[in-house]
Order: sequence, then structure tokens, then C-alpha cells
Amino acid sequence: MNTPITIPLKDSYKLFNHGPVSIVTSAHGNQRNIMAASWTMPLDFSPAKVAVVIDKNTYTRELVDASGEFGLQFPMRKNAKLTLDVGDISGRDADKFSRFAINTFPAQKIAAPLIADCIGWLECKVIKQGAESMDLIVGEVVAAYADAEQFLNGRWHFSDDPQKRSIHYMAGGEFYTTGDAFTTEDN
Amino acid sequence: MNTPITIPLKDSYKLFNHGPVSIVTSAHGNQRNIMAASWTMPLDFSPAKVAVVIDKNTYTRELVDASGEFGLQFPMRKNAKLTLDVGDISGRDADKFSRFAINTFPAQKIAAPLIADCIGWLECKVIKQGAESMDLIVGEVVAAYADAEQFLNGRWHFSDDPQKRSIHYMAGGEFYTTGDAFTTEDN
Repeated sequence: MNTPITIPLKDSYKLFNHGPVSIVTSAHGNQRNIMAASWTMPLDFSPAKVAVVIDKNTYTRELVDASGEFGLQFPMRKNAKLTLDVGDISGRDADKFSRFAINTFPAQKIAAPLIADCIGWLECKVIKQGAESMDLIVGEVVAAYADAEQFLNGRWHFSDDPQKRSIHYMAGGEFYTTGDAFTTEDN
Repeated sequence: MNTPITIPLKDSYKLFNHGPVSIVTSAHGNQRNIMAASWTMPLDFSPAKVAVVIDKNTYTRELVDASGEFGLQFPMRKNAKLTLDVGDISGRDADKFSRFAINTFPAQKIAAPLIADCIGWLECKVIKQGAESMDLIVGEVVAAYADAEQFLNGRWHFSDDPQKRSIHYMAGGEFYTTGDAFTTEDN
């Protein structure tokens, strides 16, 4: 698996400022679940906050509401299939971690496991701010990690190998790989 | 400029489901402004809603609060510089449209102008849902358009020319081009 290095919380927005697809992990008691989420964004720098849309009818939402915690992680292209697989069945019917043989490692500040084959990870605690009526969950980031190989000196330096890069979800099973970095001077 | 074709509102989330950087336009009375925003996401399919973070201290926020409207558009790589330029000065001090010679065309359902050199455009009406304390503006999408050349049959078919593709913002003046499309069968 990739080696997660700890990222300062103030830099955690950089893990997904570019809008990659994410995977949400959750746990409460002896229950746990995993779902994909495209609708997520940073919400503040300090304290670092994230916003993620989690439908009120989902099992993930039930566990997030009950535990007040969730993990948010960013898969690499090599694991694109995982983000589709976990949407195919409900976690109420099967333990998706077992079903899809998902490798995890323990989080430090939340009970939900983190997924090994990702390149960025956030541990989040839910902040109640009245946004729940919009299916919107707001979380404060309490820990952040990134792939030691690709996140260096406070920013992504994505591999030339597209299989290691983050991905963006379109719809209907279609993704985009994160493309090449540029500045307006290169343009 | 690109030719905007009308998109059904139910498909409007597809314009930015993949997390590109956006530009917010706003107008109230004879005032108007423009700012870049990376922190934006779809919030619902039907009625189509968007969430965008607009700091309470900005001139854009003042105009959006006063008018209850905003335009949200997605630039192509060729116009990456525009997204940086409009953050360099405050709209309180200068009309950025004139300063940066920005080509616009009129929106249909909102007063704010839309920016010609983009590939996707949303006209939005603010919905008050108690999220304002988080610098979060929620809008209902009331009109949507996309570049006729690249949005076909309800989805993006990005040009092979990276200059025409959407872009994702990292930090510190760095962007990523939207990379190649793939499905898990290609992977």
C-alpha cells in the first residue's frame, strides 16, 4: 500500500482542492460501511472543515449521524473500480469491506477504518450547523495523511503513472484521471 | 467564443461533477463583480442545486446577498489566467470586467453577466437554508448551458486539445488539466 504521511491540518484542503472523487468510511458500534462521494469540498482553512453530501436514506448517513465521525479518502486510478463497486450494494445487506476484500488501516482519532489503496485521507468529526436538511454533512478535519510518494513539500506532485493519480467522477461509470499540472506561465 | 447550448436542469450537475475550478459572476443595480471559486459542488439533482463557498467579507458576497442571484461558470485551460487575475484585486476598487477585458454575454434568468470564454455555465438563484453562517451559499440552478463542441448527448467529450478542457485548481497558482476519460473496463 501507499505510505501515509501526516499532513498539517491547515494544508488538508490541498488534498482535494482539485475536486477528486472520494470514498466515505463510517463506523458505529460493530457496524461499518463505505460509500463513494463526488459531492465534497473544503469549507474552511482553519479550523479545517469539509462539506460532503450524504443522502439521508443511506446506511452511511445512519452511521455518521450515530457516531458523529467519518473518514474521507481519495482513491487512485488503480482503484477506480472500488468506487463503483461500493455503490452496487447497500451496507445494510453486506459488509462491503469483506465482500470486496478492501484493505484498511486504523484511523487515529475516529473509529471508522481508512482504506489502504488511496492517496489522501482525512479523519473528520461532524459539526452540527443546520445544514443536515440539505443532506449536507459538515466535518472538522482532525487528522490528515497523504501518500508520501506523491505529496511532497505541501503539495501534490503526481506520478507520471496515471494509475497512481487521483480521479474525478463524471457519471454513468465514467471517470477522468487528474491531468498534467501547469501554471499560467506554462500555458 | 464557444457556443453555449442549453442543458436540461437535471443534467446540470454533470457540468462540474468532476470538480473543476469555477468563476462566480454577480450583479446588483449598476454594480457587478467576478471571482474564482474552487470550493463548489452539486448539492441535489432535482431541483438542481449547487453549493459554493463565498467568504462573507468579499464584494461578490455583498452582491450575491443583495441580488439573490449568481452565475457559476467553468473556464477552459486557455483562460486559466483569468481565474488568477480576478483574485488579484477587489471588485470594490475596479470593474474587473473592464480591467481584464472580459468578454461576456447576457444571462437569461439572472442579471449577472456570463463569461464568454468558458465551457459550462449555470444561472443560480440563492436559496436561504441557514448555511450562510458557514460562508456557504446554496443556489437553485435555473438555467444551464455547455459548450456545444464538447458536451454532447448529455456528457462531456473533452477535446484532445488540452487548452479547451476544464481545469482544477491546486493552490499557489498551480492547476491541473482535466485528464483522459476512462471506465473501469479500460483500466
